[in-house]
Amino acid sequence: MIIGIVGGTGDIGEGMAMRLAPLFDIIVGSREQEKAQTSCECSIEALKKIGKECTLKGVSNQTAVDDSDIVILAIPFKHLSGTLETLHGFEDKIVVSPINPMEKRDFFVFVPPPEGSAALMVRKMLPESARVCLAFNTIAANKWRALTEELVYSVPVCGDDTAAKQKVMDVVNKVSKLQAFDAGPLAVSPLIESLTPLLLNIARYNRMKDVGIHFR
Amino acid sequence: MIIGIVGGTGDIGEGMAMRLAPLFDIIVGSREQEKAQTSCECSIEALKKIGKECTLKGVSNQTAVDDSDIVILAIPFKHLSGTLETLHGFEDKIVVSPINPMEKRDFFVFVPPPEGSAALMVRKMLPESARVCLAFNTIAANKWRALTEELVYSVPVCGDDTAAKQKVMDVVNKVSKLQAFDAGPLAVSPLIESLTPLLLNIARYNRMKDVGIHFR
Repeated sequence: MIIGIVGGTGDIGEGMAMRLAPLFDIIVGSREQEKAQTSCECSIEALKKIGKECTLKGVSNQTAVDDSDIVILAIPFKHLSGTLETLHGFEDKIVVSPINPMEKRDFFVFVPPPEGSAALMVRKMLPESARVCLAFNTIAANKWRALTEELVYSVPVCGDDTAAKQKVMDVVNKVSKLQAFDAGPLAVSPLIESLTPLLLNIARYNRMKDVGIHFR
Repeated sequence: MIIGIVGGTGDIGEGMAMRLAPLFDIIVGSREQEKAQTSCECSIEALKKIGKECTLKGVSNQTAVDDSDIVILAIPFKHLSGTLETLHGFEDKIVVSPINPMEKRDFFVFVPPPEGSAALMVRKMLPESARVCLAFNTIAANKWRALTEELVYSVPVCGDDTAAKQKVMDVVNKVSKLQAFDAGPLAVSPLIESLTPLLLNIARYNRMKDVGIHFR
């Protein structure tokens, strides 16, 4: 199974690529292929230092879509619509949105698009056969990158295609000590995307760093 | 410090009263004072059985407001506006909303009022000097009642009056093993009230019971 990360050189994407690369075939997409290749070389070096061998291929965002079974959209909400408009070929793919539409005002607020959530906007922009799921929303970029630390978090996953959702949950459960939880259909995505502004506020008002979430 | 529980004979309220009674002076309010007295007698009996002595006074909802320093509104969202319209005397009181406006459709959805949240609706309905905070939203009724089990959960608290919020956090931190987290001003309340439908969906789709939340 090949996982393509669109926006794989960004804040979240690069750390995600490093965590997933020892476990799956990962291709890292970027607007500029050269940037993706440089990022992959750095990631391979970083992984070598902690004794993990892997291959990581830097490609264009379009190739990351074309050549993968699961596409992770590791892009900030403000670039989501613009990026999706330049890409095609999502038919039948499993597409994972870890995107949180939010703004920093005096505190962090959830600012969803008219569709209700970023994931529902992705759903609307992509062809009907794309199997859109939501996962990985609440894991901070710093945590993805801290390769020597385990990721001990709960990860709510939602989506309308049961088989696709199960595959995404299987991926989640293989990464460090992450634990996937089925949160329901894609319609519950606003409840998940609003977790991150809450966690950022809690970090800020309690002087904590990179607060994560656990269900039990 | 006296804590009054409006709706203290309900699902959440009764369990809350039993947990708080050994720690604080608690008065339990109900629309019918007699019902409140019966509920208190049962609670005192239940507490005696586990070796905890306490006094619990059953009163009318209005007396629960009048005679307390902190008022907890332990009422379902659908009765919130009707109940507040029958009550007065909230001036200068600390008022705690644990209320989650939600509906069970095919799954649980967050259905806030036009103000944006139940807590913001409370804010609008009460006199300006009332110090409205939000707390205890994510603790299931069954957990409140399971007196021999510790409550090991994180409790996000928000509010605009810093001193009031600190007092509410102090109350939270005294109950079992609950840990209060400052989540910011009352404007963040939608982010907290939408946690409960998320937790109920996770319980349902993963065959779990009374799922709670932890930040770390």
